[in-house]
Amino acid sequence: MVSNALLIDLYELTMAAAFLEQGRGSDTATFDLYFRHNPFRGGYAIAAGLEDAVRALVDLRFTPDDTAYLASLRSPNGAALFRPEFLRYLSGFRFRGTVRGIPEGTVVFPREPLLQVRGNLVECQIAETILLCHINFQTLIATKAARIWEAANHGAVIEFGLRRAQGPDGAMSASRASFIGGASATSNVRGAERYGISPKGTHAHSFVQAFESELEAFRAFARSFTDDCVLLVDTYDVLRSGVPNAITVGKELEKSGHRLAGIRIDSGDLAFLSQHARSLLDAAGLGYVRIVVSNDLDEYVISNIISEGGRIDVWGVGTNLVTGAGEGGGALGGVYKMVEHNGRPKIKLSGNPEKMTNPGVKRVHRFFSNGWMEADALADDSEVLSGDGVLIIDPNNPLRRKKVAPSLRVELLEDIVRGGRLTYEFPSLACIRQRRTEELARLHESYRRLHNPHEYKVGLTHTLWQQKEQMLNEETV
Amino acid sequence: MVSNALLIDLYELTMAAAFLEQGRGSDTATFDLYFRHNPFRGGYAIAAGLEDAVRALVDLRFTPDDTAYLASLRSPNGAALFRPEFLRYLSGFRFRGTVRGIPEGTVVFPREPLLQVRGNLVECQIAETILLCHINFQTLIATKAARIWEAANHGAVIEFGLRRAQGPDGAMSASRASFIGGASATSNVRGAERYGISPKGTHAHSFVQAFESELEAFRAFARSFTDDCVLLVDTYDVLRSGVPNAITVGKELEKSGHRLAGIRIDSGDLAFLSQHARSLLDAAGLGYVRIVVSNDLDEYVISNIISEGGRIDVWGVGTNLVTGAGEGGGALGGVYKMVEHNGRPKIKLSGNPEKMTNPGVKRVHRFFSNGWMEADALADDSEVLSGDGVLIIDPNNPLRRKKVAPSLRVELLEDIVRGGRLTYEFPSLACIRQRRTEELARLHESYRRLHNPHEYKVGLTHTLWQQKEQMLNEETV
Repeated sequence: MVSNALLIDLYELTMAAAFLEQGRGSDTATFDLYFRHNPFRGGYAIAAGLEDAVRALVDLRFTPDDTAYLASLRSPNGAALFRPEFLRYLSGFRFRGTVRGIPEGTVVFPREPLLQVRGNLVECQIAETILLCHINFQTLIATKAARIWEAANHGAVIEFGLRRAQGPDGAMSASRASFIGGASATSNVRGAERYGISPKGTHAHSFVQAFESELEAFRAFARSFTDDCVLLVDTYDVLRSGVPNAITVGKELEKSGHRLAGIRIDSGDLAFLSQHARSLLDAAGLGYVRIVVSNDLDEYVISNIISEGGRIDVWGVGTNLVTGAGEGGGALGGVYKMVEHNGRPKIKLSGNPEKMTNPGVKRVHRFFSNGWMEADALADDSEVLSGDGVLIIDPNNPLRRKKVAPSLRVELLEDIVRGGRLTYEFPSLACIRQRRTEELARLHESYRRLHNPHEYKVGLTHTLWQQKEQMLNEETV
Repeated sequence: MVSNALLIDLYELTMAAAFLEQGRGSDTATFDLYFRHNPFRGGYAIAAGLEDAVRALVDLRFTPDDTAYLASLRSPNGAALFRPEFLRYLSGFRFRGTVRGIPEGTVVFPREPLLQVRGNLVECQIAETILLCHINFQTLIATKAARIWEAANHGAVIEFGLRRAQGPDGAMSASRASFIGGASATSNVRGAERYGISPKGTHAHSFVQAFESELEAFRAFARSFTDDCVLLVDTYDVLRSGVPNAITVGKELEKSGHRLAGIRIDSGDLAFLSQHARSLLDAAGLGYVRIVVSNDLDEYVISNIISEGGRIDVWGVGTNLVTGAGEGGGALGGVYKMVEHNGRPKIKLSGNPEKMTNPGVKRVHRFFSNGWMEADALADDSEVLSGDGVLIIDPNNPLRRKKVAPSLRVELLEDIVRGGRLTYEFPSLACIRQRRTEELARLHESYRRLHNPHEYKVGLTHTLWQQKEQMLNEETV
């Protein structure tokens, strides 16, 4: 594997150099990695990317080539940007700190630390970029996949995005996160191989164009793939040509003891076309033939097609899934903020309340009532929550408070890395996917709906709020 | 380098298998790779990704591990999905066809083949996914960068996107394409190293938080980086704390013979804050200190800040640049369509005129008048264009026609690969970037503006149009 230590924003290295040179190298700190808004204007997110992020961090080493490159960088005055002592430090660098994290597949909300990184200032800072890069993207895509899976009424979703992804590796991360979020297969063969996902795909319009007629093309494809033949029926005309030809081939397959697996429609009015295709197939005795659709699908289009009576068995979703497209999408705005330094809580002020940080080393508690997630609390690390009602206070507006009297409480952050060593056994992707299914089943529909979802409550405990308020008073200029 | 042969949509392989099994393995074909709409509702795009796409194609090999994985895939009936003969074919596969392409950094428009791939049906099909993956993403990002660079009045733009990119490799491709399009530096150290871009970055809020006071933090950073010290001034309050402290440090640097390089503002009203910061700096005799801004910038925000009188020297753009965000963005909808088969032109019909393909092997001609790009024509490969006026016909609506009487005509497609071998010397990124600058200088402002740009004319020659019309008549069901 190619060294990834240079996959880092330069400012992590300039800060690290300055910390060391100014005698701050052994200061300790805690950083929270969190996001401020649910993506897609939705009511939740699905945590993903933890394993890739943490493995990148614990394996992070600066090779001789890396430090040689850094040694070549120059300041405007021509002097070396980095001093030799710093480059020697980097040569021996490895992350020796602590990471706690929320497991992949968990339903998460704004302001909750998905990762909590503790260590010396330098290692915490060097960790920042690579952690954000993995967590931001995979959480975005897992969330998009979950929304699509929900819109499809938990039906079959295939991720078709390799050609529209952000380069090859963007496609790989997208295949992984899509599977966590709800896709059950991918067109990306490498993604399927690496992650143990089922690869899917049949043929394109070009296959039909390469034969004298659509029927001849369908027959040719069916001869090669007798038992998983899905025919693309929209090269010429879906209902006048594609479906009738598919029925002809379906009946021929039956005679030789096989079954046509499906048809795919890739253009036009998918609700209308699928209804009529279904009727034609059923009338021909091919009720078992499945209807696959594709063409710029997303959760809203899928929801509309279903409400218009579309008869779809499988949804192929590409671009909008792997790029996390849509209002409030495109990127998860995850940030990485210092919340503690040498044992003292730290705050960053802002004129915008939601950009203020929540100081202190935290735990994340989730409260359940009658099996449903009710609210989450950010508590001080050492705080003992009472068994009775817990008061939580909105960190963005302390006028908003809620008393939670739960029947069940769990903590979300788990130990992942201690002293630079993995102490966590990463679950299989199948387990992560299963976790996501179970988590969504405990989140009430009002938080899951596409339009104007309820805002799930994530508050500070009174202790944490008092600490924040005190710092606010002290730090205000 | 990891084998990339499996970075392919499964359907390319099922089609390839069926072509071979049905005796079509030596059929020849031509495929065009093009997009249908300019990204971002803009008036142009910047071609990018050619080198990565073509190198991936000519280096594409199926390793024993790759074919072993493919051999493990099963049909629903339990039989192997692929037959041993096909897997043996893949083991010996390499691309032996021909590729023509439009050089990176060229201004391009919808419906123009950015790549033209010729070869046997199987190799053309196997090429599809990886070509689209590279060209779609890099063209999107180079175009976004060009729009941002234009909005910034060709000022300094730094790409800051690693943490919000689509995984590590998405970030690398984004750094490359951003540089082509107009960014002059990147925060991504690996991207800087691999592509020879200048790496940039200073410090984050956490650096300030790690010291007792902002002033102490600024002094510490300035001691380590005397000549390229850019101070982040918005941790507490830009005008009441950050800028005054930066001025103090700037004056101290002057006393030791150095100069404060800049300040960075990362939140708030950037037009207002930059104007006041400029006044404070100038009044202190620090007129040379540059003002860097960041915080969810894109071409529209930059354009607004400038029109409101913002005093900005350097624009740091992250998320919106590397994800190609914005209306009409997120992905370039590049497609790869068969236009010729065994010497005969091929068409794909659609109820939607813009989704019909333009049949035949083509050349792309660009006409200039008085130094400006005037229009482009898609012509038949063998067609000799007259020196006088050339009639071009809108492929989406043949009622729209234009006579072009150019002073200069050039052809855009160049030979890149012949018989599977590279015949093209890829230019350096600096040359590609220079080409993009020159190209944009010859595209009239009416096509470059952000809002409602003119539509640049790309038409079929009369010969190509007649061919399309004839096929339309023949193929209509």
